[in-house]
Amino acid sequence: MMHTGIDILAFLQQPGLEELSQCFQARSYPKKTEIFPPNHEEDMIFIVAKGRARLFLAYEDKEFALAILERGDVYSTHTRAHISALEDTKLLCAPTALVRRHMLHLPEFTGTMVRVLGEVLRHSISIIDDLAFRDVQTRLVRFLRFVASQSGVSQPGGGTLVNLGLTTEQLASLLGTTRQTLSTMLNALERGQRLELRGRGAFFIPDLEALS
Amino acid sequence: MMHTGIDILAFLQQPGLEELSQCFQARSYPKKTEIFPPNHEEDMIFIVAKGRARLFLAYEDKEFALAILERGDVYSTHTRAHISALEDTKLLCAPTALVRRHMLHLPEFTGTMVRVLGEVLRHSISIIDDLAFRDVQTRLVRFLRFVASQSGVSQPGGGTLVNLGLTTEQLASLLGTTRQTLSTMLNALERGQRLELRGRGAFFIPDLEALS
Repeated sequence: MMHTGIDILAFLQQPGLEELSQCFQARSYPKKTEIFPPNHEEDMIFIVAKGRARLFLAYEDKEFALAILERGDVYSTHTRAHISALEDTKLLCAPTALVRRHMLHLPEFTGTMVRVLGEVLRHSISIIDDLAFRDVQTRLVRFLRFVASQSGVSQPGGGTLVNLGLTTEQLASLLGTTRQTLSTMLNALERGQRLELRGRGAFFIPDLEALS
Repeated sequence: MMHTGIDILAFLQQPGLEELSQCFQARSYPKKTEIFPPNHEEDMIFIVAKGRARLFLAYEDKEFALAILERGDVYSTHTRAHISALEDTKLLCAPTALVRRHMLHLPEFTGTMVRVLGEVLRHSISIIDDLAFRDVQTRLVRFLRFVASQSGVSQPGGGTLVNLGLTTEQLASLLGTTRQTLSTMLNALERGQRLELRGRGAFFIPDLEALS
């Protein structure tokens, strides 16, 4: 499940974008390492070419995840978010100033970047909506339903298989809660037969409508 | 204090942008009326030409303000935010599809829109940071310091005058709290002589560093 649904990697392979593509240099990061601290000194645009990167805010000993970036997602090092590698991850990085210079001659690329930013913004507003108004249980249900709608697999005997590919800890951080609170909630949902844990971030949900 | 600090109204007056400017039609909204509901059926880009518009999320009987848009600020009707007129407000509106078509031929304008979206996104991440990690008192102090840094007026005898131009209710909604909680907090700060209410959204702060 991509962050924005717009694959910049594929976009850059279009004819006419060779010069821009060549600005990007590959960098590799092993699983579980830090990729960039907040407001990294190199102001760069990066695209995920392999693996997954976690975007999160941190304060004292707390973390709050903003998004998981997947292959094709684009982001900037110049925000207050931490970026770390969930898996072995390869990024394509280019200085923001250089990309900006190309934008002046590549209006279609720039238009696509406007769409990406619009999507990221829409996502941020939905996080704010969640944090301002919903409790953790509601956020969990909304999140499961959202992932099910994006990448859930209908099962032959009924129900949906949802593979988040996240540990309980990572999911807790996405929902702005602790691992303990989330585990208690998931256990209660499982006891009520509204979902079944299928190990390593996969859930079977018999009835998406009944999940609440 | 503008939302993004990028004045699109001034930008549109540059030579070469006449055709784009002409896409925008003026619409007027009296003080305290709704301008657009969330995801308004007309997908438009609008620029504030006069007055101030409040951008907020609503859920049941609660509201959470995202921003106050001022003259020169640009936004879209196609988000989940409500938009209402804080004062008699004039907007310049153009269909998003039309603006997008112009973007293809006006890379400098498109580049500016990327910058605007980047700023709005930075602002959203800072709201998420506040909601996820800070209590209301900390958010109030950070907000007052931020406005002081943007538009505070140093006073001859020392201290800073900060004019928010917001009612207690509007400020409470910006901070994600109730009017009652905010009033109690402001009264405590005033009793501790860390700020002085000067009426109608204006505050005198003797020492910005000591404010906490």
